[in-house]
Amino acid sequence: MSGTLYGVGLGPGDPDLMTLRAHRLISEAQVVAYPALAGGDSLARAIAAAVIPAAAREIVMDIPMTTARAPAQAAYDKGAADISSALDAGLDVVCLCEGDPFFYGSFMYLYARLCDRYDVQVVPGVTSITTCAARAGMPLAARNERLTVLPGPLPEDELRARIDGAESVAIMKVGRHLGKIRGVIDALGLTKHAMYIERASLPEEVVCPLADAPEKAPYFSMILLTKGADPWL
Amino acid sequence: MSGTLYGVGLGPGDPDLMTLRAHRLISEAQVVAYPALAGGDSLARAIAAAVIPAAAREIVMDIPMTTARAPAQAAYDKGAADISSALDAGLDVVCLCEGDPFFYGSFMYLYARLCDRYDVQVVPGVTSITTCAARAGMPLAARNERLTVLPGPLPEDELRARIDGAESVAIMKVGRHLGKIRGVIDALGLTKHAMYIERASLPEEVVCPLADAPEKAPYFSMILLTKGADPWL
Repeated sequence: MSGTLYGVGLGPGDPDLMTLRAHRLISEAQVVAYPALAGGDSLARAIAAAVIPAAAREIVMDIPMTTARAPAQAAYDKGAADISSALDAGLDVVCLCEGDPFFYGSFMYLYARLCDRYDVQVVPGVTSITTCAARAGMPLAARNERLTVLPGPLPEDELRARIDGAESVAIMKVGRHLGKIRGVIDALGLTKHAMYIERASLPEEVVCPLADAPEKAPYFSMILLTKGADPWL
Repeated sequence: MSGTLYGVGLGPGDPDLMTLRAHRLISEAQVVAYPALAGGDSLARAIAAAVIPAAAREIVMDIPMTTARAPAQAAYDKGAADISSALDAGLDVVCLCEGDPFFYGSFMYLYARLCDRYDVQVVPGVTSITTCAARAGMPLAARNERLTVLPGPLPEDELRARIDGAESVAIMKVGRHLGKIRGVIDALGLTKHAMYIERASLPEEVVCPLADAPEKAPYFSMILLTKGADPWL
């Protein structure tokens, strides 16, 4: 009988923001799998490090740092094959996912490859969005307000159109797109409503008004924008 | 010295989806506070029930069931005053919040009333959105995809315009708006891409294609819609 694949959300980075279920699944794991970027460290593994049993087998998926799809596809094909072998041997596999597995998470590429053949359970995690809101003291949405989530790499025109028509906006993956995004928000006269957050919940976290943001942003950074939210009800 | 107010996200309903931090804060609480709707039960208290210490004092905020603002404002004014008294006495207060405190959560009304005078810490929680995605086996957003979160009570015209221009859509608080929302999604030819989820992660959970949804939906129900997401990378 085949094992079960668990896609386990670890939350934004602070291990204390892991769910009880994630903690239990990892602490009992025989096999864990996780992505590592271009031969470097794995943030997912770092978040779970204190919980992974010493005897657990580790499947590392080495994901190339490129926007080209074929090399990354090949890496997920190989990861899926390695995970398949463990599942076929009757072992459960716990795949470690930063944040939430289905919210801009690479687990969905494994899910697409394996969900037809195996029992796959997805354990949701705390996302960076609500973590950033908590750290910035910035309620995201109330009552009938809308929330729009936009990735920073979108073209400038599209960002402008989407932000202009929105109420609350979360812009993910700011990184090297910070200058472009600041320009758009400035041009719309919305900078005073925007907060910048990087590495939310980690010791090196930065939280400040967008106007005071650093020149360079890491990949794990976000801008939150709320226009006219009325938290008084 | 005043106590600290913690706004603690409990996740979507299954106590196992509480974070480690939420679990610890509740299990050590001297005072817990939570909303209850119109004299009825409190879902927040139910999620945390097994963790609340028997000796903890409980501040119940009785929130009237109405769309009028003044009665609800008065209830949060009274809740804030009760919490203030405990904080002034040097006690920490753990406010129990379904889902995430700043994502359509009533905690933001307490936050607005108290954050200038007290130390307030917000602990993010797993939201219903990613829980529904996990339960429906439906990745929400990848790469440069956008996600739009819409409350079901929005007017039909606005729902149509927002859904039509979106990629992934999560429609919250479906409840008595189910018929209207189904009509909009049908008219846009998108029903085949939509899933219906109610009470995600609870024992009485329902997950099905929107086409098979029941006639009546509870307040805690959601529709997820993804157009053309490509989970293969």
